[in-house]
Amino acid sequence: MDKIITISRQYGSGGREIGAKLAQRLGIPFYDKEIITRAAKESGFAEAVFENAERKATNSLLYSIAMGMNAYGNQEIGFTHLSLDDQIYLAQSNVIRKVAMEGPCVIVGRCADYILRDFENVVHVFIWADLEYRKNRAITQYNLPANKAEEEILKIDKRRANYYNYHASEKWGKVENYHLSIKSNYIGIDHSVDCIARFIGYGEGGSAEKG
Amino acid sequence: MDKIITISRQYGSGGREIGAKLAQRLGIPFYDKEIITRAAKESGFAEAVFENAERKATNSLLYSIAMGMNAYGNQEIGFTHLSLDDQIYLAQSNVIRKVAMEGPCVIVGRCADYILRDFENVVHVFIWADLEYRKNRAITQYNLPANKAEEEILKIDKRRANYYNYHASEKWGKVENYHLSIKSNYIGIDHSVDCIARFIGYGEGGSAEKG
Repeated sequence: MDKIITISRQYGSGGREIGAKLAQRLGIPFYDKEIITRAAKESGFAEAVFENAERKATNSLLYSIAMGMNAYGNQEIGFTHLSLDDQIYLAQSNVIRKVAMEGPCVIVGRCADYILRDFENVVHVFIWADLEYRKNRAITQYNLPANKAEEEILKIDKRRANYYNYHASEKWGKVENYHLSIKSNYIGIDHSVDCIARFIGYGEGGSAEKG
Repeated sequence: MDKIITISRQYGSGGREIGAKLAQRLGIPFYDKEIITRAAKESGFAEAVFENAERKATNSLLYSIAMGMNAYGNQEIGFTHLSLDDQIYLAQSNVIRKVAMEGPCVIVGRCADYILRDFENVVHVFIWADLEYRKNRAITQYNLPANKAEEEILKIDKRRANYYNYHASEKWGKVENYHLSIKSNYIGIDHSVDCIARFIGYGEGGSAEKG
């Protein structure tokens, strides 16, 4: 088991919990949005981002076009010329690449599948679920008010899709971006963990068809 | 195991072989495009379709719009007013619904996931694979000439997508249409069969989270 597993997930699908349990099961580190953001803030490289954030914030895409730049995380771009969003993305990308180079781990969100697309030992997983199940989870687990849950879920998913589509210049939730995609409410959280663990095991099984 | 399993697949991904082996493993009938088409031809209902095909062929979408009809397999539409494509689709849909009502089975292709969308005991699976793997399978298994394989694969996938997008008015390969999506060349044909069989077993496990 020398894999880095990235998990992309619809809000309320249990993807984060599945990732955490998978990491625990495999005995490898777990990184989610909060951990990556904190690490990015704490890194010397990124300090400037958060200090200069307000001052340098611009509409990143328009600004990048105006400056004739590649907006998609190209590190050759002068760092202080990037928008706040792009600077944070860059700092987070560096953290993701760094932890991936340290060894096997589970990374949830933050375009990790795209950022690590050139790594060979990665397995990308997508978790989704029916809206009713996600509403129920959002209300019971994340304390969203029942009358706002659906609106909030759709808003957060829209934000995740936009974030991915912008930074990865790929479509979020496109089936070909993931080795394995699971409807979590059909088999439940623990079986989803089983399913991913087995899938990775199969992939490491040395079958002639492995690719 | 009382499930009906539908398998959608990219050309050359091994989806048909996976479906056939899964049906064999589970001891349930297997239906692919050829079987469904033959059954549709042999059914009394469909006989007229193939006889009258040439005579009645029209551009189905434009014709349906002109006649103020729903083109998406609505059986209330006068049968002989439909285009050849729509008539064949309708006859195949009837076969698919008929075999699904007879009991557990595996059905590959023909928009079966969409046609059976209101059935409760269905599991929808999508199989995809890297282009290189598919080219290799197309050449070695389906005897496509090496210099034409890529072009042919892309053409057939385009045709499958168009067929699905037209009849199902949904996007082919959209992750939320499938309970499970697998990159077959990562784990191989036999492990893909294992993976689906286990997934279905998990779904029947009676977990509180089952949905």
